[in-house]
Amino acid sequence: MQLDFSKLDGLVPAIIQDHATGRVLMLGFMNDEAFRKTVETGFATFFSRSRNKLWLKGETSGHRLAVKRIETDCDQDSLVLHCESLGPGVCHEGYRSCFYRTLESGRWVESEPRAYDPSTVYGSAT
Amino acid sequence: MQLDFSKLDGLVPAIIQDHATGRVLMLGFMNDEAFRKTVETGFATFFSRSRNKLWLKGETSGHRLAVKRIETDCDQDSLVLHCESLGPGVCHEGYRSCFYRTLESGRWVESEPRAYDPSTVYGSAT
Repeated sequence: MQLDFSKLDGLVPAIIQDHATGRVLMLGFMNDEAFRKTVETGFATFFSRSRNKLWLKGETSGHRLAVKRIETDCDQDSLVLHCESLGPGVCHEGYRSCFYRTLESGRWVESEPRAYDPSTVYGSAT
Repeated sequence: MQLDFSKLDGLVPAIIQDHATGRVLMLGFMNDEAFRKTVETGFATFFSRSRNKLWLKGETSGHRLAVKRIETDCDQDSLVLHCESLGPGVCHEGYRSCFYRTLESGRWVESEPRAYDPSTVYGSAT
């Protein structure tokens, strides 16, 4: 189960792909502990670089990612996790996928509507 | 076209996805210059961390990646590029995808045969 965590200071990028549609939903980072938790629990767990701690995806929203299959690449320094997304969307901005913007004539353009209202899940600043 | 290159010392991860099948083919890193070259030329160009320079994917093998669509995520710190893979495979080990190993009972297991013989493309050490 060995991975090469040396290239990014103890982290590897982990691509989350919808197991049914193949859509890329998000990209997170895992350290060794997050990777082991993911394998043990069957739910995607990342290392949050901003909070500097483990982060079970969905711990606040309930929108967990149930892992169906895990792949690694030739260099064993990145991962693809085929997941079932439990909830309307993985993105904290309210979209099904974090990759909701497409480059068109040099500008990032929203390419889909929101799937849910994030203020009902994460609370609101107001 | 702005991206946040600050989180990984000037780089963003770029996921390469087959535009027809949705399969994730590889993950590379781009700096600002590599990203601009990719957009300008229509062929995926990365920043090689090991060689510390720009790397046009396919410059040795001829197996270029023709970019069909580019997406970014909510934080604008990672990319998905939907590409047509020109050649039998993107992996320098001879596989269609770099993600040719699947985790099974705690071990990485090859889940597909080689698509081509890499020694005919990259030369051999013998």
